[in-house]
This record gives sequence, C-alpha cells and structure tokens, in this order.
Amino acid sequence: LAGARASSAGAWGPARPFRPGTPALDEFPFEVWGRLAARHWRRPPAGLLGYGDPAGHLPLREAVATYLGTARAVRCGPEQVIVTAGAQQALDLAARLLVDPGDQVWIEDPGYLGARAALSGAGARLVPVPVDEEGLDVSAGAARAPRARLVYVSPSHQYPLGVTMSLARRLQLLEWAERAGAWILEDDYDSEYRYAGRPLAAMQGLDRGGRVIYLGTFSKVLFPALRLGYVVVPEGLSCAFANARGVLSRFSPSVDQAVLAEFIEEGHFARHIRRTRSLYAARQAALVKAVRSELAGALEVSPDEAGIHLVGWLKEGADDGAASSAAARLGVDAQPLSSFTLEHRRRPGLVLGYAGYDERQLRAAARRLAAALKQ
Amino acid sequence: LAGARASSAGAWGPARPFRPGTPALDEFPFEVWGRLAARHWRRPPAGLLGYGDPAGHLPLREAVATYLGTARAVRCGPEQVIVTAGAQQALDLAARLLVDPGDQVWIEDPGYLGARAALSGAGARLVPVPVDEEGLDVSAGAARAPRARLVYVSPSHQYPLGVTMSLARRLQLLEWAERAGAWILEDDYDSEYRYAGRPLAAMQGLDRGGRVIYLGTFSKVLFPALRLGYVVVPEGLSCAFANARGVLSRFSPSVDQAVLAEFIEEGHFARHIRRTRSLYAARQAALVKAVRSELAGALEVSPDEAGIHLVGWLKEGADDGAASSAAARLGVDAQPLSSFTLEHRRRPGLVLGYAGYDERQLRAAARRLAAALKQ
Repeated sequence: LAGARASSAGAWGPARPFRPGTPALDEFPFEVWGRLAARHWRRPPAGLLGYGDPAGHLPLREAVATYLGTARAVRCGPEQVIVTAGAQQALDLAARLLVDPGDQVWIEDPGYLGARAALSGAGARLVPVPVDEEGLDVSAGAARAPRARLVYVSPSHQYPLGVTMSLARRLQLLEWAERAGAWILEDDYDSEYRYAGRPLAAMQGLDRGGRVIYLGTFSKVLFPALRLGYVVVPEGLSCAFANARGVLSRFSPSVDQAVLAEFIEEGHFARHIRRTRSLYAARQAALVKAVRSELAGALEVSPDEAGIHLVGWLKEGADDGAASSAAARLGVDAQPLSSFTLEHRRRPGLVLGYAGYDERQLRAAARRLAAALKQ
Repeated sequence: LAGARASSAGAWGPARPFRPGTPALDEFPFEVWGRLAARHWRRPPAGLLGYGDPAGHLPLREAVATYLGTARAVRCGPEQVIVTAGAQQALDLAARLLVDPGDQVWIEDPGYLGARAALSGAGARLVPVPVDEEGLDVSAGAARAPRARLVYVSPSHQYPLGVTMSLARRLQLLEWAERAGAWILEDDYDSEYRYAGRPLAAMQGLDRGGRVIYLGTFSKVLFPALRLGYVVVPEGLSCAFANARGVLSRFSPSVDQAVLAEFIEEGHFARHIRRTRSLYAARQAALVKAVRSELAGALEVSPDEAGIHLVGWLKEGADDGAASSAAARLGVDAQPLSSFTLEHRRRPGLVLGYAGYDERQLRAAARRLAAALKQ
C-alpha cells in the first residue's frame, strides 16, 4: 500500500449535491429489505452464521450470474462469480492477484481514483492512457506500454467522462490483450442506468481468450452501506480469486448476502432498477435544465444517455480546482476534472452527480455553484 | 498475494467437532439481534446508508475503546480504533501498511495460518521463531533476524499451543521492538475466554513506545458471519490505517456496525460473554473427560485456563498428518499441529476446538477419533 498510504479511496459522510456515486437512498424499499432481514434473523440456519465460502453465498452467486447474463450479456456460471465487499475490494483483489510490484498497468486518464489507489497499492506502475470520443485509446496504450500486465477500463460509461467505448475499440483492446497476455479489468460500475440508445453488452461477453475480469457493485443500485459487489473471472481463475478473497477478509457477511439473493430472486431488485431508472432520467433532465438556466455562459452540460453523473465544462483556461474550492465554501460538492487526471489535461470541468438529489436540491445547488463561479 | 495464491485463510462450511474457532452459534441471542436490526431497517438514517467513515461507525469505535479499556487494559481513544471486516482484514491491513516486500517478519512457530497468509501476501520474508512455555522466544528471534520490521504474536493464548506469554517476555519484546524500531502485531483473538488464573492485560497497555498494533475480532464471541473486528493503532497511525482501510474495501456495512454498537451499549455483549464463558469452561471439562476416557494412552490433554481449543498430544514419533486424515475419514476434524509448523518440530498433536460443540457431540467425536487412531 506504499503508493496509496496518503490517499483515501473516496469521500464519505452526508452526501450533498453534486457528490457523485450516491443513489436516491430515500427511494429504496427498506420495508421489503427489513422484512427479508427479519425473516433471516428469526431462525438463522447454522450455515449462515459460521465461516462461509470465501467465493460467496451460492444463491447470491447464482442470482448474480443470471442477472448479468440477461442484463449485460456476461457469459458465466455461478462458479465464476466471486462476491466482494463492493467494487473497491474487487479492484484490490484483482490488482493484488494479477499484478506484481513493478508491473505496468494502463489506466484511463482521466480515470477513477479508487482504481488508481488499488493498483498503485499493489505496486503497479501506472501508465496513463488518454480517452477520446471512442473511449480508451488502445493504440496510444500499446505504443507506450506494450508489455503492460493489466488494463483498467470502464467501457460502458467511462468514469468520469461518460464516454461509451466503441465496439471497434473493444475488439481492438481484446485482441491486443490476447496477443500481449495482458488482463482486462472491466469496471461496469453504473451499467444499470442507461436511458436511451442501444446498450452495448459487456466486453466480458465478447472475450474469447479469457482475458477479461469483470466487476460490478450493488452500491450504486441499492445503497453504498451494504458493501456488496462482485467480480466475474475466467474459469481458470475461480480458485485463485476465492483463495485470495479469503486472505483479504475471508468472506462477506452471510445474512446480508442471503437477504440480497432473495431480494433479487423475488423481483425487488429488477423493480427497483426500473423505478430508479425513470427517476434518474428525470433528475438528469432537471440538472441539465438547472445548469442551463442558472449557469448559462459559465458551465456547459450535455445530456448523457447513461450514468448517474454529468461533466459540466468550464471555459477554456479556467481553474477547475479553484472553482471546486469556491463551490465547497458555498456548500456544493463539485469535484474538478483535473483531480482525476494524471497527464492528459483537457478542458477544465466539474463532476456533477445527480442521482441522489431531487429537482429542488439540484436547482438550489446550481444556483450556489453559479454564485461560486462568479467569485 | 503471490505468496498466498495457493493457500486459503481457513476452513469453511458446516462446522463439525473439533474444528476450532467456531463459537456456540445456538447460544447467541438472535431474537435480541434481530430486534435491534429491525429497529434500524425500519427508519434507517441517511448516514447509515451512504458511504461511511473508513475507520468505522463512531459509536462502535467508542464502544470498542471502552470495552477494551475495561476488559483488557488497552489504553486508547475511539480515534485509535479502526473497524475491520474481522481479524483477517486487520491482519491484511497491518501487513500491507507496515511491511514492504522483502522485509523480515517474526512469526510464532507453530502459529496462526491466517496471519502467515496475510504477511506473506504482503511480501514479507517470514522468520519462524520458536515458542516455549513462556511464549515467543524473543532472544531466538533477535539472534536470527535483528532487523525484522514486524513481530506477529498472540500473547494472551498462543495459537495453537495455548501458552500465555510471561510478563518478562512481554517486556523483553517491547524493549527489543522499541530499540529495533519494529512493530508488534498483538493478536488477542480469544481473550474473552479465560476461566481461571489471573488474566494478563494486553501488551498494548504496557507499550510506552507506540510500537503495538492490537487486533481483535467479534467472530469468536458473537458469530463468524458477522465479519466485524478491529485494530487499535498508535495515535500517529490512525489516519494511515483509516486511509488504507478505505483502499482495501472502503468501510464495513454500517447497519451491522450500528446494531453491534447498541448490542454492546445495552449490555447484551457482556451478558453473552458471561454466559458462554461458563458454557465453554464446562465444554472444555467435557472434552478433557471424553479424551481421558475414550483416548487413554493414545492422546494426552491437559486443562487450559483460557481459550476455546486444546492441543491433544500424540505419542512421540506419531504422524499427526496421518492421524488427522484418518480422523477426517471418520467425520472428525482434528488439524495436525505439524500443519501450523514451519521449522520447529515438536511432539505431534491435534488441535481440538470445543466451544461450538455440546458434551454429547464432543464425546461421540472423541470415540470416533479413538477409532481413527487405532487404524
């Protein structure tokens, strides 16, 4: 963890607009969840109380495999699904198992800080690869670090830019990885939220060479404090991942896993995704409208077909770090794009999460952000 | 994790005698736990649903600090307590934060396999140090690896031998560590269970130089599937540990933490320890009686003032690995002492956990073990 000692994996505490990654917590059906939990605590079977399978509770692994097959065209059996304590543990697990200290790893630039922390914590030498309108620039990566061991990528909805990786690029990356013997770590962190356009299936389903490790989380769809996520690994890696998961923290809380499995099986999960999908589409529209009316000329946003955040673009030459600090002083959380960037500077911008905030909150925050930008 | 790729951190699945580490699950007050959980799910505050403090839920950290101060003479404030997903994550966290690849680390020989896996996973070069009737042989360690970065030790009740480290040895180790600038990782995994004799306070409370990292778990007192434990760190290390915990898996499930905090505050925790302490004392006596009547001449046990397992000693020259395999074929789990040993071979033996099994089960298992040893 030498490289990660000074930096945490993310913000915490009460969420305020526009902190990204927080879902609409007040929309979650806690009465359903509480009922399922109560049923389990009433007469918990011994199998849910002692030491559990490091790979996860089998009914949950089955439910995840079925869901991912249908929703994301991920091709896997339950034995390839390893339950983790959220996406961060999945990143840490993959990084530590697949990367040796000193190995080169491509990361998207700009890119997700939690992935950067996990990879540098495993001793990786990070190689920032630019992202264009088709996603990760595979040729640039191949030119710069042809012998990289692993590539971290968020093809569905690049974090933070929101680009969807084109099919051509996906195939190029898969082909390169197979030739180079490199691993692809596909982070599908907010794939549930697509509002328009044809959803591209996960890269995992296109992978013929067994190079893709696919990861997802329930933090964005359900609630972050659940701490459950998963990684889907090529068949030959199941045992290694399960054993390594055991060394990290043995297994995830069994009753939580069992409750989640039932929540999925009984249809509550699909229903909650459907409900929040319409809600977040409306909230995105509200954010776009608020920015265009309150921040005209100062911040530019475009609607996005997917995700739970937008990038607001500042004027060329503006200092997004200073803008973010000014916003924070007025109670608005707007992370600067530059903080996600290692080398490939681009137009300055602010990351604006919207899923967790209602129309009124979004409008009020846009107004405060406008005041901050005027300073 | 290179060194740990092949080995898991521990056994799982339905526990059968004499698998150690499993408490009496049917004695746990699940009606109380379920009631506290239901109260939280009914109207969960937003602060328990979003991203939480990587260091842990403050009321739980306060409850742990108070409990450890009273029960174990640990001297710490809540800000020094970092909540983890059980002892295994505490071990992994400490190993990764304090050990650089290639560093020498003293480990007890024989010793706990989960610690070995975490430390070698962090790239440590393990230095097996013998254990005698006073605990870890500090002089032997100092002679063999005077520049070790860290020492892993279980002074209350050495795992698996059950020795309590003498005060003289504790002071010798503290003094050596301070001089050498080494860390001491004090694993107090089953400190709640002492049946007789004067309990020695934790080493942490004797530490004047800020060298001790103290860890404990709720897996043995409550139930393993809860996945909550803690590490108590010297003041200057709180931030580094909290940040690193964030990189590993962000934080532990908040509702579980809040329920546990109330479980402690309302006195259920202390009551459960008291009840299980008498129960386990009786079970240990039952095990000793069963072994002495069913296994006379084949296996030798002595009562122990503490812990939730005993070592059964085989005859000199016996093959404890073969004995363990024979027992497994008859449905008895009896891990061979040799499997915990790297270098310092001693009289062969079997590790016999008893806390999770009633008198009838212990007697039946002793009878089957006797049959296995006759083969």
